[in-house]
Amino acid sequence: MDAAVLRLGHRPERDQRVTTHVGLTARAFGAKGMYLAAEDHGIAESIGNVVSRWGGNFFVENNVKWKRCIGDWKKKGGIVVHLTMYGLSLTEVEAEIRCRNADVLVVVGAEKVPGEMYGLADYNVAVTGQPHSEISGLAVFLDHLYQGTRLDPQFPDAEIRVIPCAHGKMAEGK
Amino acid sequence: MDAAVLRLGHRPERDQRVTTHVGLTARAFGAKGMYLAAEDHGIAESIGNVVSRWGGNFFVENNVKWKRCIGDWKKKGGIVVHLTMYGLSLTEVEAEIRCRNADVLVVVGAEKVPGEMYGLADYNVAVTGQPHSEISGLAVFLDHLYQGTRLDPQFPDAEIRVIPCAHGKMAEGK
Repeated sequence: MDAAVLRLGHRPERDQRVTTHVGLTARAFGAKGMYLAAEDHGIAESIGNVVSRWGGNFFVENNVKWKRCIGDWKKKGGIVVHLTMYGLSLTEVEAEIRCRNADVLVVVGAEKVPGEMYGLADYNVAVTGQPHSEISGLAVFLDHLYQGTRLDPQFPDAEIRVIPCAHGKMAEGK
Repeated sequence: MDAAVLRLGHRPERDQRVTTHVGLTARAFGAKGMYLAAEDHGIAESIGNVVSRWGGNFFVENNVKWKRCIGDWKKKGGIVVHLTMYGLSLTEVEAEIRCRNADVLVVVGAEKVPGEMYGLADYNVAVTGQPHSEISGLAVFLDHLYQGTRLDPQFPDAEIRVIPCAHGKMAEGK
């Protein structure tokens, strides 16, 4: 059950930091890549820098057409989950989503999302139904999707690696 | 077992959006308030606007002295958890933290955190040990602290409330 993220509504002039956090969160919590429905090479570059040091094969695909991305995902048998505070509660739908055992495209919007998105999604899912952050919503959704099993990810080709420590900072690597 | 957040290292000129997401995440995932170790009335105001519409008593205390905040919390019998990718894995320490059944001050830094923080914390906790986002770390930590029981929060005095919906947007309120 692979997951990838589709980031909608990114505005290069104000969303660079939040979208970078979305991408790094996707990687850390087990997704295999992020499709960015905007042209912003800086995002791909800054996430690519993390991947080259911290390991793994996480991809960022820039400037995708969002409806085509969704259509292609569905054609391959995947399902589409749109995170929105207006959706059904995560606690209500997560077991059903896992039971489908399909690859999951997680759609994460910025402030405004086209109305069509609510119809195109197989599931519109609310992580709390309160206003907070697409970054939090994505992290908690992926953690629940994988039932907490991906909280200690290992990236064998990493150049740098943290050594867990009760009080201090330790890392090994180049 | 109450929780509150202490936000360190906030720079008003560049962290407003991320710190606002930290505060809203704290509220949505069950914390009672945020102490901000910086002077930025805009944060308190924007989170206050959400609280006044969406309900609850979440507080933002501006311009706190961080060491005093930690000392006061400990004097009242609370414990201090610092979220850092260099800490011990969440999966390893979460049960012990819950077992202590004490109020938890969750310390969330920006890029650089004073070295002393690692010694002052009762627990330095890594949510994955990978670089991602303090917003994700906070959300997943609180969700684990409360074992997924606060994902459908109710704020009885809310002016506005989402009506969960499979495909569309519905809300009730003023």
